[in-house]
Formats: sequence, structure tokens, C-alpha cells
Amino acid sequence: MSGGDGMASEDRFYEDIVVGSEREIGRHQVSRDEIIRFATDWDPQPFHIDEEAARASVFGELTASSCHTYSLSSLIFHRGTARLRTVAMLGMDSCRFPTPMRPGDEVRLVQTILEKRRSGSRPHLGIIKGRTQMLNGAGETLMEMTSNFMVEARPSS
Amino acid sequence: MSGGDGMASEDRFYEDIVVGSEREIGRHQVSRDEIIRFATDWDPQPFHIDEEAARASVFGELTASSCHTYSLSSLIFHRGTARLRTVAMLGMDSCRFPTPMRPGDEVRLVQTILEKRRSGSRPHLGIIKGRTQMLNGAGETLMEMTSNFMVEARPSS
Repeated sequence: MSGGDGMASEDRFYEDIVVGSEREIGRHQVSRDEIIRFATDWDPQPFHIDEEAARASVFGELTASSCHTYSLSSLIFHRGTARLRTVAMLGMDSCRFPTPMRPGDEVRLVQTILEKRRSGSRPHLGIIKGRTQMLNGAGETLMEMTSNFMVEARPSS
Repeated sequence: MSGGDGMASEDRFYEDIVVGSEREIGRHQVSRDEIIRFATDWDPQPFHIDEEAARASVFGELTASSCHTYSLSSLIFHRGTARLRTVAMLGMDSCRFPTPMRPGDEVRLVQTILEKRRSGSRPHLGIIKGRTQMLNGAGETLMEMTSNFMVEARPSS
């Protein structure tokens, strides 16, 4: 982790984001209850909410919904870089879920900045392309996403 | 909507999925409370949870988290095609959120099947590539995703 674009105690703007920098955004311990609660609300497939059905599934145990994995990345970002002046998520160039998230996983979110450019039509905004990886304790990749999002430029610039 | 791969009252397997078919999966009315509740749990940025902060944001009004938009698509799939024998979400080739989801939106989810192939290593499973669009009442695209997921083949085949 180079953390080259740090400034954790202040607001971070477009100008503070360093292309090529990699940082650990944060960690989170995933509980069985969290997996079942999320899936009950948003993705109530038997293998996400019922231990017995999960044992009969391709994974052989309870696994989290991909919606949960993605949403958890958002929550870890919020906790870890609450002061990054993000204004909109534009989308993903790609997103993979190679290994499912499971109860007890201690997940770790790492972001690498791939590109940045100022918006042509709205120069007070910038567009960032980043790669976000969520890893479990064994170092397996739960999510790898390349996404594009907008951030504010520093007001004085 | 051709609905060529219908069979709503029975389980639907790999063999029932028709490449090129397009179907409306379902609809959902989005409330202000739902947007704030989701974002409070998973993406608590001010413009997702606070009307006043949202008025000062780039969109000028309360908008849903992209995590909420994606998760809602999962819920509409579950309600609309609960009997499709899906076993895993593999990931997205791309996903865009061109227009944010807003309170009061009556959203509509449409899926087009792009490709299907049987798994080489696990012939009792198939891999489907589909394009999923979520539209609001004005016909604007809230989400357009090309994703890959696994489904069960019919046990007798």
C-alpha cells in the first residue's frame, strides 16, 4: 500500500487522487446474520438464507448475495474514506465475483487508481477509473471491479 | 417482449432459456423511505439519505445508491422468475447507471438472453450471458448490465 493520496483527516478532492496509488480502504468481519438479513431483503434465494438449502447448493454452504458483496464494498468505502468528495457512481467496466463471501470472512478492500480526467462539460468535476478488490482472510478474491466515478474538484482550483 | 422462454408456473432450467428472447421480469414502485433505508445501511452519503444535502448535490434531489439499484434488480428477478434455477452470479462484463433512481420511480426490469453454453467441467450446469435493463416510467435507463450467471440443467437431460 503506497497510500500516496492520503489526507485522511481532510476532505479529498480530484486533485488529491494519485494515478497508480494503491490503498487499503478498510476491513469488515462478515457475520452469518448479516448475510441472511441482506439476502432476505434483496436476494432471497434459498442458498443465501437457509443453511440446509445452502448445504445442497453448488457451494455446499451459506454464501452471500453478490448484491451484498457489492453493497459492503460501498459501506467500507464510506467508513474508510468518508471525506472523499464522490458525487456519483457511473458504472463498472467489469465486475467479477470469483469466490463467494461466507460467514466469518474477514474481508479487506483495496483500491488502485487507474486513470483520472477532468470532466469536459463540468470542469468542477473529475472522472476517476479505479480497480477495487475485496479479499478474504485467505487472500482469495471475493470481488474485483473496475469502476468509474465522479468526484469534486477543489473549489479554489 | 417475446417471452419465448416462459413457463412461469414450473421450474425453468438451462434448456428452457432461449437465446435472443427478451422478457419483462417485473416492476417495482420505489419509495423515498426505501431509498433512505437502503442508503443508511450500505451507502450513507448525504445525497442518498438527506433531502437538503441532496438538493445541493449534482442531481439536485434525492437519488438512490447504485448498490440499491443493483440490489433491487435482484429482488425483481426473484419475484418475477423465482423458479429459474440460478445457482451463482459470476459477474458483469459491464454495468452502467446512466440516470439515477429517484423516489416515486415506477421501475421496469427487462432481460434479453445473449448467449448460453453448457459448463465444460460441470455439464449439469450452464452459463448464461444476459443483458438486464432497468427503466423508469419515462423510459430512461437507470441500469444497463451485461452479466454472466450459472443455472442448473434439467436433471433428466
